[in-house]
Amino acid sequence: MRGWARLRSSLQSLEARRTFSSSASTETRVGIAQLLSQSGNQSDVDVYGWVRSLRRQKRVAFVALGDGSTLESLQAVLKPDQAVELSVGAAVRLKGSWQESKGAKQSHELQVHDVKVLGENDAEHNPLQPKVQTADWLRTIPHLRPRIPGHTLLLRLRSQVIASITAHFNKQGFVQTHTPVITSSDCEGAGEVFTVSAGDSKDTKQHISGGGEIEVEHFFRTPKYLTVSAQLHLEALAQAVDKVWTLSPTFRAEKSDTPRHLAEFYMLEAEMCFVDDLEDVMDVVENMLGAAARDLLTSATGDELLQARSASVSDHENGHDRVTAEILQRRWAGMADGAWPRITYTEAIEHLQAAEKAGLSKFVFHPSYESGLQAEHERYLATNIGEPHQPVFVTDYPRAQKPFYMSPSIVTHNTKGTEDTAACFDLLVPDLCELVGGSMREHRLKELQRSMAERGINGAGLEWYQDLRRYGSVPHGGFGLGFDRLLCYLGGVGNLRDIVAFARWHGRCDA
Amino acid sequence: MRGWARLRSSLQSLEARRTFSSSASTETRVGIAQLLSQSGNQSDVDVYGWVRSLRRQKRVAFVALGDGSTLESLQAVLKPDQAVELSVGAAVRLKGSWQESKGAKQSHELQVHDVKVLGENDAEHNPLQPKVQTADWLRTIPHLRPRIPGHTLLLRLRSQVIASITAHFNKQGFVQTHTPVITSSDCEGAGEVFTVSAGDSKDTKQHISGGGEIEVEHFFRTPKYLTVSAQLHLEALAQAVDKVWTLSPTFRAEKSDTPRHLAEFYMLEAEMCFVDDLEDVMDVVENMLGAAARDLLTSATGDELLQARSASVSDHENGHDRVTAEILQRRWAGMADGAWPRITYTEAIEHLQAAEKAGLSKFVFHPSYESGLQAEHERYLATNIGEPHQPVFVTDYPRAQKPFYMSPSIVTHNTKGTEDTAACFDLLVPDLCELVGGSMREHRLKELQRSMAERGINGAGLEWYQDLRRYGSVPHGGFGLGFDRLLCYLGGVGNLRDIVAFARWHGRCDA
Repeated sequence: MRGWARLRSSLQSLEARRTFSSSASTETRVGIAQLLSQSGNQSDVDVYGWVRSLRRQKRVAFVALGDGSTLESLQAVLKPDQAVELSVGAAVRLKGSWQESKGAKQSHELQVHDVKVLGENDAEHNPLQPKVQTADWLRTIPHLRPRIPGHTLLLRLRSQVIASITAHFNKQGFVQTHTPVITSSDCEGAGEVFTVSAGDSKDTKQHISGGGEIEVEHFFRTPKYLTVSAQLHLEALAQAVDKVWTLSPTFRAEKSDTPRHLAEFYMLEAEMCFVDDLEDVMDVVENMLGAAARDLLTSATGDELLQARSASVSDHENGHDRVTAEILQRRWAGMADGAWPRITYTEAIEHLQAAEKAGLSKFVFHPSYESGLQAEHERYLATNIGEPHQPVFVTDYPRAQKPFYMSPSIVTHNTKGTEDTAACFDLLVPDLCELVGGSMREHRLKELQRSMAERGINGAGLEWYQDLRRYGSVPHGGFGLGFDRLLCYLGGVGNLRDIVAFARWHGRCDA
Repeated sequence: MRGWARLRSSLQSLEARRTFSSSASTETRVGIAQLLSQSGNQSDVDVYGWVRSLRRQKRVAFVALGDGSTLESLQAVLKPDQAVELSVGAAVRLKGSWQESKGAKQSHELQVHDVKVLGENDAEHNPLQPKVQTADWLRTIPHLRPRIPGHTLLLRLRSQVIASITAHFNKQGFVQTHTPVITSSDCEGAGEVFTVSAGDSKDTKQHISGGGEIEVEHFFRTPKYLTVSAQLHLEALAQAVDKVWTLSPTFRAEKSDTPRHLAEFYMLEAEMCFVDDLEDVMDVVENMLGAAARDLLTSATGDELLQARSASVSDHENGHDRVTAEILQRRWAGMADGAWPRITYTEAIEHLQAAEKAGLSKFVFHPSYESGLQAEHERYLATNIGEPHQPVFVTDYPRAQKPFYMSPSIVTHNTKGTEDTAACFDLLVPDLCELVGGSMREHRLKELQRSMAERGINGAGLEWYQDLRRYGSVPHGGFGLGFDRLLCYLGGVGNLRDIVAFARWHGRCDA
């Protein structure tokens, strides 16, 4: 039993040790954003960060310090000998007193007593240089790019929008869930998919170049794919909890090379039961985006995004399109205001034809009911319907243009729709075009099966999906929002490759 | 211009239409949980849900209605002829008045005026039957299983814990991010990985059974895998924003067949810079889990979990282990209380050896420093160190047992550690064992490279990871938490296959 006593006492000493742990812990440590907002003088301040710039004068040296919490830098004042070992990009700890500044540029500055270099920067070889570098080049160093203040800000933007939407949905009684990434079903029935196999790469049926194929064991018995949408699984979960949503990764093995497509991207998808009116689904989208936009309009992150837009240099730095602060603010306001125009596809086509006829716009493709909306048409609609920076819902597209799972318009109250159109919508925003797509889902078994048959979809892999219509089916609807696209729109970023920290597209998977 | 005028007017009529849209929209509709909490009588109430049970008497019929918002059912009182078309499992809309009940079981009930069947249930063929069905069977119908009230509750548990942790981290200044699923790096250097190839399955280097291989084009130029951890990418992002976290899917192509392993699972991972003490990282874990547990202790979801545990039938129904309400409550309290014991690996081994010597426990494997902690050892420690339902941190494992990226203990303040042990911890909880693993990360370039070389890790694919140590490196640490395991622990579920809605493991990927 002496072993026991010894252990007890050693545990007690461990407990005691804890109370003496470092005072500036991760959670109590003061970040630079917080310090900059404090106007009172403070004698003993510990600040951690990276040197953004360094100015040595004869009797004094100035360090601009950043820690990722704000675009702004903290000004630290050092004696020249304290700055000897410092260089731009180095990580440092500065101890000092927080005092009113004599300079005009800042209200306070840190009078440094003690300097500690935590990590040197090999400035000569650093691929990230403190000068203008092209967006293309920066995409080759995604592990360093987030350190550029404008890119750091985009990370904060993502975090804030997630937090806003999580809180909003929580309040609205939507249940957040995790849908599978590895799946058997190809939701859209179109689109290239990625195949998943076990690491020994003996796990797939393989066509040999000469013809023929090798049959091998599958990890999951049958071939599996990376999900292209959470929708089908969400529909199953919605029949348990009524209203459900997820923010999860989605994949397309498309060899597209555009600013608006990635091979891997986050989708925000939601499904809700007991809805028989497409308007309700659009209301949910409008309110959700409104909540995110309103948070942005009143937050520090929003202020900093505007500030970054005002400083023209950051446009180059970040590889952004020239979205001015004014445009950005109008986008947020347009989103926050709600009550966005809702027009049918037919009305949209009429509108476009009228615009073409009146010479108000020249389109490459003549707008017609049959040929569908081209990007140029969507762009025109997004800009010209409603206020210039208001999103626009276009509803009731021809069913032939849409996937098998959509209800015909006629089963919902919302239009003079027919069997020929689907109870669906796309949400278009200026510049970016399609941001959200949603619909009522066909909840009647026979009609669903007919729709699958018409499109040549084999129901075998979707037996479980049909089950949802056999056992207590309900009218329901939902939507999918391209989350990275939303961040591009809200952040004024022209290319998905710049809003996703580690972007993947055809031929490119750096880091 | 007449076209324009017509369009304007049609837009105006669209606007007008909106204001007349159905009054009981998704967001204003009253759910059953909400209604049950209202004690006042109401004359006109619309309720949507599924029939959980049906009792026909001569002059009256009783329907128990559920909509997924609560374990409890709403009692609806119908005339026998109103109930003719009803069956268990059907989706219905009931209109009626909300009145004080004469029955003792509920304070209020719905006196029904109008019944509408929204979707029939083919009760005879429904694989989900209103009787006890085995957990194994239920796992074959994941698209229907969530409808079982005990499983619905687990969906709400997941949602609540996500919301708690999102709010907590947001308050603490942690930036939430999305790390890539498709990646080149295999973080642990161990573990089987899934390979990703483009859908035409011509996209991989393939070993032919007879020997030799076929070279084919890769979608991303080189072979790519499903991520086994977000850690390396988080470390890069932490150097931009200081404190970062993600909740994202993670994969292992392991053919393990245990209740504690899945091929696809969610990990909550966090990294923080400017930390030189492992204690700080443990504090973050303790505070985060404490916040989630406290929310559970004071929430309706928590109450319902306890209620479900009291009703013994639900244990069978849900395939749960026999975790009583009392155990569950102690788990939450243990987690909420904080100040969990922290012992070193060496102390843990001594403790186990003393326990073995004193005859307090018989182990299959003799505990020794070299052979590592077995599951039985972890279980003993989790139960016997500290209070019985308190988690336990075990720190400073031998470096030989741990991955290349961990710092030796000696570079942190926290122990009498040496070069031989790593500045790392595992968090053990009773019954479940390892819940979280974390460490200080080796932030010194040369030492990192030496550690990689010692383990035979080729640095080529990890060049970018080494860069993080070249340019402004800082002491940093982080952790990974098995999110589905956490939910098992908090929800009293014994098998990961029952906490994940669509679970994937070797040979199984249903729906």
